[in-house]
Amino acid sequence: MTSKASDTPTWYDEVIKKAELIEDYPVKGCFTLRPCAYRMWELIQSWFDGEIKQLGVENAYFPMFIPKVYLEMEAEHLDDFAPELAWVTRCGDRAIDEVALRPSSETAMYASFSKWVQSHRDLPLKINQWCSMIRWEVKQTTPFLRMRENLWQEGHTAYADKESAEKEVLVILDKYAHIYENLLAVPVIRGTKTRAETFAGAEYSTTVEAFIPATGRAIQGATSHHLGQKFSKMFDISFQDPADSTSRQHAWQNSWGITTRTLGVMIMVHGDDRGLVMPPRVASVQVVIVPVGLKATSSQEDKDTLRETAERYLEVLKNEGVRVRLDDGDQRVGWKFSQWEMKGVPLRIELGLKDIQQGTFVMAKRNVVYTRNEDKDIGHDCTMVQDVLWALDDIHADLYAIALCDRDAHIVSIDIWADLTVNLNQGKLLLVPFCGSTECEKTIKEKSKEEAAEGEVEGGLKMGAKSLCVPHEARYQVACSLKCINPECDRQTEEMGQRTLFGRSY
Amino acid sequence: MTSKASDTPTWYDEVIKKAELIEDYPVKGCFTLRPCAYRMWELIQSWFDGEIKQLGVENAYFPMFIPKVYLEMEAEHLDDFAPELAWVTRCGDRAIDEVALRPSSETAMYASFSKWVQSHRDLPLKINQWCSMIRWEVKQTTPFLRMRENLWQEGHTAYADKESAEKEVLVILDKYAHIYENLLAVPVIRGTKTRAETFAGAEYSTTVEAFIPATGRAIQGATSHHLGQKFSKMFDISFQDPADSTSRQHAWQNSWGITTRTLGVMIMVHGDDRGLVMPPRVASVQVVIVPVGLKATSSQEDKDTLRETAERYLEVLKNEGVRVRLDDGDQRVGWKFSQWEMKGVPLRIELGLKDIQQGTFVMAKRNVVYTRNEDKDIGHDCTMVQDVLWALDDIHADLYAIALCDRDAHIVSIDIWADLTVNLNQGKLLLVPFCGSTECEKTIKEKSKEEAAEGEVEGGLKMGAKSLCVPHEARYQVACSLKCINPECDRQTEEMGQRTLFGRSY
Repeated sequence: MTSKASDTPTWYDEVIKKAELIEDYPVKGCFTLRPCAYRMWELIQSWFDGEIKQLGVENAYFPMFIPKVYLEMEAEHLDDFAPELAWVTRCGDRAIDEVALRPSSETAMYASFSKWVQSHRDLPLKINQWCSMIRWEVKQTTPFLRMRENLWQEGHTAYADKESAEKEVLVILDKYAHIYENLLAVPVIRGTKTRAETFAGAEYSTTVEAFIPATGRAIQGATSHHLGQKFSKMFDISFQDPADSTSRQHAWQNSWGITTRTLGVMIMVHGDDRGLVMPPRVASVQVVIVPVGLKATSSQEDKDTLRETAERYLEVLKNEGVRVRLDDGDQRVGWKFSQWEMKGVPLRIELGLKDIQQGTFVMAKRNVVYTRNEDKDIGHDCTMVQDVLWALDDIHADLYAIALCDRDAHIVSIDIWADLTVNLNQGKLLLVPFCGSTECEKTIKEKSKEEAAEGEVEGGLKMGAKSLCVPHEARYQVACSLKCINPECDRQTEEMGQRTLFGRSY
Repeated sequence: MTSKASDTPTWYDEVIKKAELIEDYPVKGCFTLRPCAYRMWELIQSWFDGEIKQLGVENAYFPMFIPKVYLEMEAEHLDDFAPELAWVTRCGDRAIDEVALRPSSETAMYASFSKWVQSHRDLPLKINQWCSMIRWEVKQTTPFLRMRENLWQEGHTAYADKESAEKEVLVILDKYAHIYENLLAVPVIRGTKTRAETFAGAEYSTTVEAFIPATGRAIQGATSHHLGQKFSKMFDISFQDPADSTSRQHAWQNSWGITTRTLGVMIMVHGDDRGLVMPPRVASVQVVIVPVGLKATSSQEDKDTLRETAERYLEVLKNEGVRVRLDDGDQRVGWKFSQWEMKGVPLRIELGLKDIQQGTFVMAKRNVVYTRNEDKDIGHDCTMVQDVLWALDDIHADLYAIALCDRDAHIVSIDIWADLTVNLNQGKLLLVPFCGSTECEKTIKEKSKEEAAEGEVEGGLKMGAKSLCVPHEARYQVACSLKCINPECDRQTEEMGQRTLFGRSY
């Protein structure tokens, strides 16, 4: 297997196939999500769906076909999508009125919202759908990270007042951060997009940004947008002003989405040269039990004891809701170990006769490289369930801590232009003073791209620096230089000590 | 509102819109599933998904785009779908290699199965996906019943032996029957399709058939197919014979699916002239609490008592997992009652001050027409949860019993041709002796269509009789005439006393 450090793209392609997450498909940019990958997505879905139902969000389903008349209503928004829109033009051998495949459902939904919202009693309106969306990418596609068909949820809400809408934007952003941090064990930076990177239809866009240390590139994890009244004016989503029966007010809207890209980020962050590493809380299989130490010469009694104990552990853990498998196949133990390591199962229980006699079992954590068998954890029969659950929690905590350390070691604060490209070339994330203008952002991107191309070692990325977000957390705002990092710009940062995060990005 | 009996199609269209299940969409044959409808689908999904996971079925996701090369592999199967295939031919303004939108995923999945199955250890392979499928219907479309985009699950399995595969066909058929009978309170007849109605790729197709008394038409509820080795030979899904290492055997396959059509059938069967009637187990809202008897002159204390009791009931029922709403809006009570009746909420709790003082509350069942208030059920504060749960169970049982009675009253056993069309014109289901041949089926259809057109009252259906299934249950097999009902045919039924169910169908 290719090593992650030496050639990350090739390593990634091998891992997702050998771990049986993805299978290539004869339509470019489309991939099959195999059961192990889909199960992880289901677990993310299930958590998030429960959370938004608590917030009063209701699921619905809008058709995947978007008629031209809808797309023409929002020309500006459309410009972003137009080159990647896939069009259905024919049915059987008959030409039909062309329809596009859903790149997202603003237009379809907001036309309905306009009918559903008549009175302030109809607000807030909170609709979500789980579906697939199509972006016919022409650039390079990568499984999970950039595909032509993507599974996602898209939430669309409308409020009577701006304040409530804006509050929700951050509540949802926090749920997205929770998915990365508490389910996938991937640290993210919460922030607001710069003007240049704001979603075309939004007043502002918030984001959680993850980081892939192996490639020194950031990746947008999920976004939560405040749309203001832009769409509600376009689609007439309005209600009678309770204070003035002669006038109507327009609703304040949000939209927010997260995709199966989550899984790609997780694989990139945690995977290693032995294969996939699944974080326990979304792992399709959390524990595998492998009986060990049996020989052809073992007595029937010994074989029975081992089998019965293994089956008891399987049943007890299943009943506790643990996703557990028993591997009692006839392959070699060493082969089994490396297979389950490749598939990224977080915890392996090695169950031998000696252990059973001593009332113990051995636990090997996927995220640890053991040089001596003695380093593995020992569980006790009498506290088996608790031992396993704690081990799973430990694995989550360790994965997160290591990813956080690694990520933080890659963040630098830069005050002058001279320091920018050299750090970019080292795969760093850059906190820089930035005036926020779209022109400066373009300059920074182009200038850093040129410098990167000149200075970089052969085979390195020739990519410039892109803005990722203005981080929300105070610890990223450092009080020093105020002037925009672009040497040609004399403007100051919008707020005192404000830093914008730049870096290479997927 | 149009009455159901006088004009069922118009009534149906009004109900699904007024009950906020469906909204029209500017692409013909496509409809928006509003939250109330989608919630019911989620509840069906959730039950079925749990059941198939218990059977070892794993969910996955295959792309919605089917390349031509796949479709060409199964020409016969394709013929069935070809006129209804929707084709993506353009992206942005560039022509692309044409791809079809998934009408179902046999080809996409079985190409993968061929790679995944190498050894008998890889079997059984049980894959399911929840997705939407496209059939670009050119005939009339109807929300839920016949749409261009349909939500469904498609299960595809492969076994090492025919016997295990065939066993699964019936296990799944029984789960589908359970959805209709135990969740939707709709009786169905389990049976096997005739040769003419068998799915193109199948060795045989089993079905659950429902019946809409209002229109005298049957409707296919869901199908479970045994594919034999047809596809496994076409796609080379094979494994090494454990008994003979030099030869390979082909897998035995099934496929099975159920769609959102379920909801349409339920609406057609239970709905009445006051609107939708949701069966309790899939109702998006099972109970609505409506405070009654308050006047403008009521004391603040009385108002508080009423509000507090209503909120307590809401919380207690919620915690018990009941899908409950409190309607404390400021509209008239009568208006609220008819709104919730229109939406089909199975149980209404009417909570008044007098009731509270007596430690009781009133329960009105949606499926009962009350002529006197005194006929409503009385619940007791001290046994509130149990009273509500029992009432919901009663409603389910009553809905099912009435639907069953109505359905059975429409089944007649016919032995001679002369009785066929007259009964068909009365909206009956016909149990007839039938030789099973495709020619006879065609003759029966055409002949009954002609006769129906001659004999029928003005405005009636001019539709002929179609075969629905050969029922599995013994009670539908009556020992009498053996000769095929087609007067021109001399063949006998395949089995002694076998009857085939014919009728008009959606």
